[in-house]
Amino acid sequence: MDDAWALTEPAFDVAHAKAYEGLFTLGSGYLHVRGSLEEHLHDAPQNADYMRRPTNTTAEKFPEPKVKWGAFVPGVYGNHPLLNQEMVNLPYFLELTPYVDGEKLDMEASAVEAYRRTLHLDTAALTRSLRWQTRHGAAVAVRFERFISAARPHLCLQRITLESDRDITVELHAGIDTDVRTSGYDHLRDVMLTPLGENGVACNLVTDYGDAAHIVTRIYAGAAERAYVDAGRAARWIIQAPLTAGEPVEIEKRTAVATSQDAEAVNPIALLVESEALSYEALYAEHAAVWRARWEQTDVVIEGDAAAQLKLRAALYHLMRAHPGDSRCAIGPKGYAGDAYRGCYFWDTEIYMLPFFLYTDPARARMLTDFRIHTLPGAQANAARYGYEGAKYPWESDRAGNECCAQWQYADHEVHVTADVVYGMAHYARAAGDAGYLRGPAAPVILEAARYWMQRLNRRAGDQHFSLLGVMGPDEYAPLTNNNSYTNRMVVFALETASEVAAAAHEHEMFKQLAGALPIVGTEDGLVLQCEDFEAFAEPEFDAFWPDRDKPFAAQVSQERLYRTKALKQADVILLMMLFPHEFSAEEIRLAWDYYLPLTTHDSSLSAGVHAVVAARLGLMDEAVQFWQRSLDLDTDVTHGGASEGIHVAAAGLNWQIVVFGFGGVHTAMQADVLTLTPRLPANWTRLAFPFVWKGAPLYVDIRPGAVHIANRGSRPLDVRVGDRAATIPAGDAVTLESRHGSSST
Amino acid sequence: MDDAWALTEPAFDVAHAKAYEGLFTLGSGYLHVRGSLEEHLHDAPQNADYMRRPTNTTAEKFPEPKVKWGAFVPGVYGNHPLLNQEMVNLPYFLELTPYVDGEKLDMEASAVEAYRRTLHLDTAALTRSLRWQTRHGAAVAVRFERFISAARPHLCLQRITLESDRDITVELHAGIDTDVRTSGYDHLRDVMLTPLGENGVACNLVTDYGDAAHIVTRIYAGAAERAYVDAGRAARWIIQAPLTAGEPVEIEKRTAVATSQDAEAVNPIALLVESEALSYEALYAEHAAVWRARWEQTDVVIEGDAAAQLKLRAALYHLMRAHPGDSRCAIGPKGYAGDAYRGCYFWDTEIYMLPFFLYTDPARARMLTDFRIHTLPGAQANAARYGYEGAKYPWESDRAGNECCAQWQYADHEVHVTADVVYGMAHYARAAGDAGYLRGPAAPVILEAARYWMQRLNRRAGDQHFSLLGVMGPDEYAPLTNNNSYTNRMVVFALETASEVAAAAHEHEMFKQLAGALPIVGTEDGLVLQCEDFEAFAEPEFDAFWPDRDKPFAAQVSQERLYRTKALKQADVILLMMLFPHEFSAEEIRLAWDYYLPLTTHDSSLSAGVHAVVAARLGLMDEAVQFWQRSLDLDTDVTHGGASEGIHVAAAGLNWQIVVFGFGGVHTAMQADVLTLTPRLPANWTRLAFPFVWKGAPLYVDIRPGAVHIANRGSRPLDVRVGDRAATIPAGDAVTLESRHGSSST
Repeated sequence: MDDAWALTEPAFDVAHAKAYEGLFTLGSGYLHVRGSLEEHLHDAPQNADYMRRPTNTTAEKFPEPKVKWGAFVPGVYGNHPLLNQEMVNLPYFLELTPYVDGEKLDMEASAVEAYRRTLHLDTAALTRSLRWQTRHGAAVAVRFERFISAARPHLCLQRITLESDRDITVELHAGIDTDVRTSGYDHLRDVMLTPLGENGVACNLVTDYGDAAHIVTRIYAGAAERAYVDAGRAARWIIQAPLTAGEPVEIEKRTAVATSQDAEAVNPIALLVESEALSYEALYAEHAAVWRARWEQTDVVIEGDAAAQLKLRAALYHLMRAHPGDSRCAIGPKGYAGDAYRGCYFWDTEIYMLPFFLYTDPARARMLTDFRIHTLPGAQANAARYGYEGAKYPWESDRAGNECCAQWQYADHEVHVTADVVYGMAHYARAAGDAGYLRGPAAPVILEAARYWMQRLNRRAGDQHFSLLGVMGPDEYAPLTNNNSYTNRMVVFALETASEVAAAAHEHEMFKQLAGALPIVGTEDGLVLQCEDFEAFAEPEFDAFWPDRDKPFAAQVSQERLYRTKALKQADVILLMMLFPHEFSAEEIRLAWDYYLPLTTHDSSLSAGVHAVVAARLGLMDEAVQFWQRSLDLDTDVTHGGASEGIHVAAAGLNWQIVVFGFGGVHTAMQADVLTLTPRLPANWTRLAFPFVWKGAPLYVDIRPGAVHIANRGSRPLDVRVGDRAATIPAGDAVTLESRHGSSST
Repeated sequence: MDDAWALTEPAFDVAHAKAYEGLFTLGSGYLHVRGSLEEHLHDAPQNADYMRRPTNTTAEKFPEPKVKWGAFVPGVYGNHPLLNQEMVNLPYFLELTPYVDGEKLDMEASAVEAYRRTLHLDTAALTRSLRWQTRHGAAVAVRFERFISAARPHLCLQRITLESDRDITVELHAGIDTDVRTSGYDHLRDVMLTPLGENGVACNLVTDYGDAAHIVTRIYAGAAERAYVDAGRAARWIIQAPLTAGEPVEIEKRTAVATSQDAEAVNPIALLVESEALSYEALYAEHAAVWRARWEQTDVVIEGDAAAQLKLRAALYHLMRAHPGDSRCAIGPKGYAGDAYRGCYFWDTEIYMLPFFLYTDPARARMLTDFRIHTLPGAQANAARYGYEGAKYPWESDRAGNECCAQWQYADHEVHVTADVVYGMAHYARAAGDAGYLRGPAAPVILEAARYWMQRLNRRAGDQHFSLLGVMGPDEYAPLTNNNSYTNRMVVFALETASEVAAAAHEHEMFKQLAGALPIVGTEDGLVLQCEDFEAFAEPEFDAFWPDRDKPFAAQVSQERLYRTKALKQADVILLMMLFPHEFSAEEIRLAWDYYLPLTTHDSSLSAGVHAVVAARLGLMDEAVQFWQRSLDLDTDVTHGGASEGIHVAAAGLNWQIVVFGFGGVHTAMQADVLTLTPRLPANWTRLAFPFVWKGAPLYVDIRPGAVHIANRGSRPLDVRVGDRAATIPAGDAVTLESRHGSSST
C-alpha cells in the first residue's frame, strides 16, 4: 500500500468520528454507505426525531450525535412535511459487532491498541485493524474490511478477521437496523424484517414518497451456533464463533440492496446467491480492476507536495464514487455521503463537477447533462407555477425536476441555475466534440429555458437595455438585486445558445436580440459590479461582527444584517471571471480581485476553489496555493468538521479544476477551440501530470517546470498551444513545449 | 329601533353566512363571540385539522367551512408549531338548537319564513326572528336574542322565545363544544367537561401555551325535562320544552368565561349565580346603559348619506367592542372577530386605531400605548436576538412582546413598527395634553427604541447622510429597499422624540444628529420616492397580470414577480403625506398622488382609507368619496366576503379618520398645536357632527356646508381655527365659524 493512496485515521478520537465517517464513505454510484463503525458507539442514538424547518439553515440547531449513519441510493426519496422531497437515509446494514464474555467492542470504552483505519483510494476499500485487550484478559486482534463492489454495484461486502491469544468464544451481532432517520425525520413505512434461511435477514420497506427498498444481508460464519433476534425495527443474527488461540477466523457479511428506482429490476437474494460462487478475494479483485481502470482515466500526479497529492486523490475518489452512472439522477450536493441539503441537485453539477467528467470520461459527463433533459417536464411545470412559459429549473431538484427548496428567496430568485444548465450542455457539446447534442437531444431544454428568460426579462422605462430584476446570484447574501453580473452573463450565453439552436426564425432573432441587450454593470473605473447599486450596500464591518473567523460569518450575524451589507458568501464577479476569463483584461480581473476579496467571507465551500483558479491565472501564486489548500482541506481536515455532514463534492470537482485549469493552465473548451495551456505550477511542485480528453482525443499532459509534455493517445493529429507556442501532435505521438510560466513565484 | 343603528341580514344566504358571522361579532372587550347561528349549519365541521405554514399567506389555500366559530379572550394564546404564538379560538358556547319531532332547525334545510337578523349597534345586541314551518305541520315563531354584557364583561346572555300554532314539544340542545380549531390547529389540552347541577356544564382546559380557561354555561328552562349528554369533546343538556299553542315560551342560556390571564381572578360560577338575581331585561338595561354612554362619547352624525352613516357606526361599534380595556393587550388585527393574522398585534394600533380613541376616550387610548410599555422587555429581547442593543418591537406581537411572525421578510425587515410605537406615544401625549408621559412612563420605550435605531443605521462610504438599508416599508411588495421614505421619516421622528427625552447629554446630542441625517429621497422634479432606486423596479403591467380586479393582485401573480415590480400593496408616500401633510406642498402631494395611484393595488385593506384622507385634503372629492366607500364596505359588503375572517378593525379606525381628519378636516395634534379644521364635506352631505376631545377639553363639532359650529364643553377657554378664521371659545360656550370649504365639489 502506497501512502499516496491511503487516507488513514491513525487513532480513534470520538471528536473526529463523524468527520471520518463522512470522509470514509464507500460507494458504487448506485449504493453509498458512510464509513460508520461496524460495532457503532454507545450513546449515539440514530433514531432521534426532530423537525427541520425552512428557516435560516446557517443558524439551524439540531441534535448532533457522535456519529451519523447513512446509507443512500440516489433517487430514492421521502416526503418531508416542511421541506418537500428529500433523499432517504436507508436502513443501516453494516452491523458486525464482536462481544467477548459480554464485553462489546467499543472504541470509547474498550482497551484498544494499534488502531489504524485506512481508506484505500486506489481500490475504494476500507480496512480497520486493532488489538483489543478484553476485560477478561484476552488480547484479540481484530481486522475489519469492506467495499461496495464497483463490478456489482448493489453489493456491499464485509469481512471481519479475529485472532485471540487464548481460546475464547466471540459473539457476533450482525443484522439490519431500520430505526434510522433522515435529518431527524422517519420516512420509512411498512417495514418488514424477516429471517432468511439460517444466516440472513430480509428487509422490505416503502418510503413515504412511495419508493420501495429491499435489503438482504447474509452472514457467513460456517457452522457456528447462531440465533435470530427480532428487535422490533431491527433484526440480527447472534453468532457464537469459537476462537482457538493463535488461529485467525474470518467471517463475512454480504448485503444486497435493490429499490423500485433501479434502472432494471434486480432480485437482491439472487445477487447474493450469485456472489456466493466467488470468494471475498475474487470479488475484491474484480472490484479493484474497475477502480484501476477509472484511475487510469483520471489520476492527477503531483510531485513536490505529497499531502496535496493524497487529498486531491480523495477528491477524485469521491467524485467517481458519487457519480450514479444513471442519467435519471445527478450527483447529490454531499456526494451521497450525508443527508445535508437533503440530497437535492443544485447548479453544482454543471459548474463545479461536470468539468472533471467532461475531460476524463465524457460519457459519464453526458449522463449529468442528460439528467436535465429528463427533468425538463418538471422544469416546465415549475415555470408554469410562476405563470411563465418555458422551463425554469428548480433551485433544488429531485429526480423529477420538482422544486424541493422550501425557502422562497432561493427557489424564486436564485434563477441562474436555468442558465447554468444550458452552459453545462454547451460545455459538454464543445468539450466532447459532440456537435449534434445541442440541436439534438438538448434542444428542447435550451429553447424552453430561453422562452422562460424572455418572460423573465424586463425593459424599464428609460433603459436602452433589458434587465434581470429581483435576482439572487451565487452570492446568496444579496437576496434581491438587479442585473447580477454573473447571472446576466450566463443568461446571455443561454440566449445565444438558444438563438443558434432555434429552428424558428422569429425565435432565432428574438433570442439573439435579447442576448445582446443584457448589461454587465460596472463603475467608471472599470470595476465590474456584482449588481446594480452594489455600492449601496453597507460595509460588512467584519472586525465588529465576525469575532470567530473559524466559523462562518453568517453563523455570527443575523440574516437581516447579512442581507444589507456587502459581505459576500462567495464572489460572483470572480466566478464570472473564472468562467469567462477571455472577456476581461488582466487589469479588470485584478481590480475585481482587490475589490471583492476583502468583502468575501468564503462561507460557501465553493468560494476558495474559484479564488484559487483565478489567483493562479493572475499569477498570485501564494494566494492560489492558500485557497487551493483551503479547498483541499474541506473534507480532509477532520479537526474542523471536514466531511461530517457529507463530502463537499462540488468543491472536490473544483479541486480538479484548480489543478488542471488553474495550475495546469488548461483553457476549457468554452474558452478556446484549440487545446491551450498556460501552466503556472506552485513553487515547490516538480511535476503535474494528468490524462485529459479533448474533443474525443485522449491525451496525457505532463508538466514540469519550464516544459509541457503532451502525448496524443488518440487516432488523429491534435493542435495544441502552450503559452505562445503552437504544435500539432500526430496521433500516437508526443511533443514537449517550453513553458515560460512552468514555475512561478510571487 | 332606528334603521340608522340597525345592521340587518334581511334573508339567510349561506354564501354570506360567514361574512355576517364576522360582522355580527359581539364583545365586551374581555370576551368576543362571532355571530354564529345558535343551531349551526349542517356539513360545516369546525374540527378540521390542517397545518398552516409560514409561506406566502396571500396565496394560501385551506379548508373553508360555510361558517367559522370564534370565541376569543384577548391575551389567551396557543403555540403553533410553525407559526409561533397565536390567539386561541376557545370552545363554542352559543349552542341553543331547537328540534321539533326530530327535525332540527336548519337555515338551509328547514322551511323558514320572515327571517330577519339584526345587530343593534346602539345596544350591541343581536336578535334573530323567523317563522319555522316544521315538516310535521307546526308553525313555530322563533326569536333568538343575545348580548355580551358591557356591564359584566365575562358574561354572555342568550334567550330563545318560541311560540307554536299548535301544542308541540320542542327539544332544545344547549351546551359547550370544545372540538374546535384555531386556523386548523388544536391548541386545547386537558379538556374537562362536567355537569353543573341540573342545568349547567362546566368546562376547564389549558392551552398548549399554558393558559387556562374556565367556561360555565347554564340553561334556564324552568321545570322542563332534561338530560345531560357527554359527547366526548362536547357536552350538552337536552331539554324537552312543551309549547302550548299560542303561548310563547322563553328559555335563557347564560355563560360565564374566566381565564388565567384575567386581570383579577374571578369565579365564573359565582358570576353566573350573581347574575341570577337579575332578569334578562335588567341585565340588558345595565348593558345598554354602558353602550349609551360610549356612543355619547363617540357617535359621528352624518346627514345626507344614510348608508354611510350606518356603516360608519358599524366601524365605531367594532372599535369600541374590540378594545380590551386592559393595557396588557391591544386590539387584534381582526378585532377579535376571527383568527386571521393569528390575533397578533401590529402597527395598526398606533397608526390606524389609536386616533379614534385619542380624540374620544384618551384613557382608553393610553391603554393602547401603555401596552407597548408593558411589552418593552420582549422588544429588548427581540433586539438582542439580532445582536442589537435597545428595543426592536416585533412585527407581530403577542402579549409579552415576542415576535410571532414566522416569515423573515416581515419580522426582520419591516422595522417601521418600532418608530410607529414612538409616534403613537407622542400622539397620545400631544392629543391628551399629557406632557409628562413621554419623559415619564414612555421614556424607557423611546430611549431603547432610539438605541436600536442607532445600531440599525448605516453610513455608507461617500454618503454625507445616514441610511436605513434593507427595509420593507408598509408597502410589503418591496421587501428589501434602502431609505424607505415612510420609515425614514418615522425614524427621524422617533429619534427627535428620543433626543427630547434623553437625560444623558451624549444621547441627546447623538439622537439629534442622527435624526438630522436621514434623507427623504426624491427625484429632481420634486417627486418623493418610496425608496432609493424605486424607479429601478419593473412596471407592474397590470393589464397583463391582473385579470380579475375583484381579487388581490398578489393572489394572481407569483411573489417573485411582485417583488420585482413597482406594484404597491399600499402607497407608502401617500401614507407619509397623510401623517405629515404640513411638510409637503400641495404640488408635491399631488405629484405623488398622480405617480403612485396607477401603481397601487390597494391589496392592503388600509390603502383605501389613507387615500380617502389625502384625496379629501387635495380637494379630490370624487376620489375621496370613492375611497371612503371602499373602506366602509370592507366589512359591510358581504357579497365580497366582508368580515368573514374578522373585522378589518384598523380600517374601521381609518373610517373614523377619513370622516374626522379628511372630511371634517381636523388637523391632528401631531400636525397643529391649536385645534384646526379645514372641512371639506362630500357634495351630498348636509351635516357632519361629532364629539371630540382636544388636549383634555371635550368639544362637540358640528359641520354644515359653509359653517362650523364648535361647542366647548370643557372648563377652560379653547382656541380654534377654521380655515383662516380663529376664535377662542369660552368654557361652556360655542362658536360658529364660516368655512370656505364647508362643501366642495370637483
